[in-house]
Amino acid sequence: MEIFILGTGGMMPLPGRSLTSVLLRRGGELFLFDCGEGTQVSLRRLNLKWKKISVIFISHTHADHVTGLPGILMLTSQVDRDEPLYIFGPPRIVEYVAESRRILDMYINYQIVVKEILEPGIIYQGSGFQVRAFPLLHSKPCLGYSLEEERRPGVFSTENAVALEIPRGPLWSRLQGGEQVELDSGRIIQPGEVMGPHRLGRKFSFITDTAFNPGLHDFVKNADLLICEGMFTEELAESAREKKHLTAKQAALIASRAGVKKLGLIHYSPRYSEGELKQLRHEAREIFHNTFLTRDLQVLTVPYID
Amino acid sequence: MEIFILGTGGMMPLPGRSLTSVLLRRGGELFLFDCGEGTQVSLRRLNLKWKKISVIFISHTHADHVTGLPGILMLTSQVDRDEPLYIFGPPRIVEYVAESRRILDMYINYQIVVKEILEPGIIYQGSGFQVRAFPLLHSKPCLGYSLEEERRPGVFSTENAVALEIPRGPLWSRLQGGEQVELDSGRIIQPGEVMGPHRLGRKFSFITDTAFNPGLHDFVKNADLLICEGMFTEELAESAREKKHLTAKQAALIASRAGVKKLGLIHYSPRYSEGELKQLRHEAREIFHNTFLTRDLQVLTVPYID
Repeated sequence: MEIFILGTGGMMPLPGRSLTSVLLRRGGELFLFDCGEGTQVSLRRLNLKWKKISVIFISHTHADHVTGLPGILMLTSQVDRDEPLYIFGPPRIVEYVAESRRILDMYINYQIVVKEILEPGIIYQGSGFQVRAFPLLHSKPCLGYSLEEERRPGVFSTENAVALEIPRGPLWSRLQGGEQVELDSGRIIQPGEVMGPHRLGRKFSFITDTAFNPGLHDFVKNADLLICEGMFTEELAESAREKKHLTAKQAALIASRAGVKKLGLIHYSPRYSEGELKQLRHEAREIFHNTFLTRDLQVLTVPYID
Repeated sequence: MEIFILGTGGMMPLPGRSLTSVLLRRGGELFLFDCGEGTQVSLRRLNLKWKKISVIFISHTHADHVTGLPGILMLTSQVDRDEPLYIFGPPRIVEYVAESRRILDMYINYQIVVKEILEPGIIYQGSGFQVRAFPLLHSKPCLGYSLEEERRPGVFSTENAVALEIPRGPLWSRLQGGEQVELDSGRIIQPGEVMGPHRLGRKFSFITDTAFNPGLHDFVKNADLLICEGMFTEELAESAREKKHLTAKQAALIASRAGVKKLGLIHYSPRYSEGELKQLRHEAREIFHNTFLTRDLQVLTVPYID
């Protein structure tokens, strides 16, 4: 699982700081989280093929999170594509895509499925993972997302298999696949006799834009990587509250309570220069040490932990 | 009159090549021609204040020419502005702006006046200049624009004034302002006795996207600077014709027939690398020598010629 930071800015794109957008690559598929003005340029800079994007998850329909969509959809008339593209978002996303297509006369030569999420919960299931949407508290309906992998099988114990006199070959594979097998002796072997306990899959969570909500950490519990808005320093906590955005410290509180492995701050206020961002990190680290500042065009890997 | 090239690309923004957009600065006012995804970033790179933009002229409502508008309009909630912002374009522009404002819940704290141009002709008059819109031939209604300054007064001849014994002072000013004056001797002096012939104002013309049209040069006649789409080389003339775009050579034909002073090519197909653009210039120069390739973030001045 790789994470590509396409942009880290809030409100407006700046030279060198595109609008907040994150791409997740897993098993050859791409998943895009938010798509502000300029996202397609970052995709290109990182040599990511928009064609491989399976699903676009939109937090909310404010201009800085969606106006890159028409440009990306327009590219679609330039290449062949058989699979539909899914777009998920809160109410208005269907209207935004439909009206953009209509008014801008967009020629699109494949299927686009746009779905409004009315109920939080599991909204998408892929091969070996699912995506869950959860409610945020912004000035218009807004969603966070977690992509959670299924549990993986435990580790196969060659030692146990040999001790149990299971012949190397197809029987090993079937046990690894979770089946019970019968030996020539007539003895039945259960997978649990040779396989360790199931191992966790990975979890990636994405949160922007929201006011602090004491229940929020539940949705990102144990995430391996939480990318979370940390728009303001504590000095502007009041302004953050009014505008329904998170301070870096609040992002750290969520990370800490959720027990995530790593927190990447994002959606920086344009008021902060690149140099000033370290204050955001500083304030977050007082609460949650494993915090880093995401940077435009950064590439991260999310490793398995067992 | 200064011209800022905000972007030179057609169809999609590329790293280092933003979508076609040109800004004209005159007497402290800014006028923007087209506004694709990313235009606000180029404005910022050139340190141009969006707040000083008086009018935005849109060629047509395809995504690559307008999707930068919502972002620019959104910035408006961040600063004070008293004057209205005018947006001109072909039919659909009113709907595009209105629907963007509605669906994206854009908070805008000053007046935006959006006007659809149904009849070519003079669409805007400023202090000392006017803007004329003219029809282009694209796959949807599309307009070109010329900003034309009024004629300037001729040169005041100090020699003549002295010879006519007109006392230096207020009488000189009134003659320079085009009034007749009476000397103490009772003699009436006409402005024409001390002023040379009127001098031309400057003219800037902007053309993109269009099929070649033999009548097009009439609209950009004698322009000091014509910025004109030259999307393809002659090798792709057939494709240009089908997609209703100009080749560089066709842009040069227009420039040549119109007797413009300078032609700047723009709206390059993304198929051409920066290095390959010189072929466009080469083909254009065979027809019209005073052709140059516009480049992102280039700043040009349009001097008076007399």
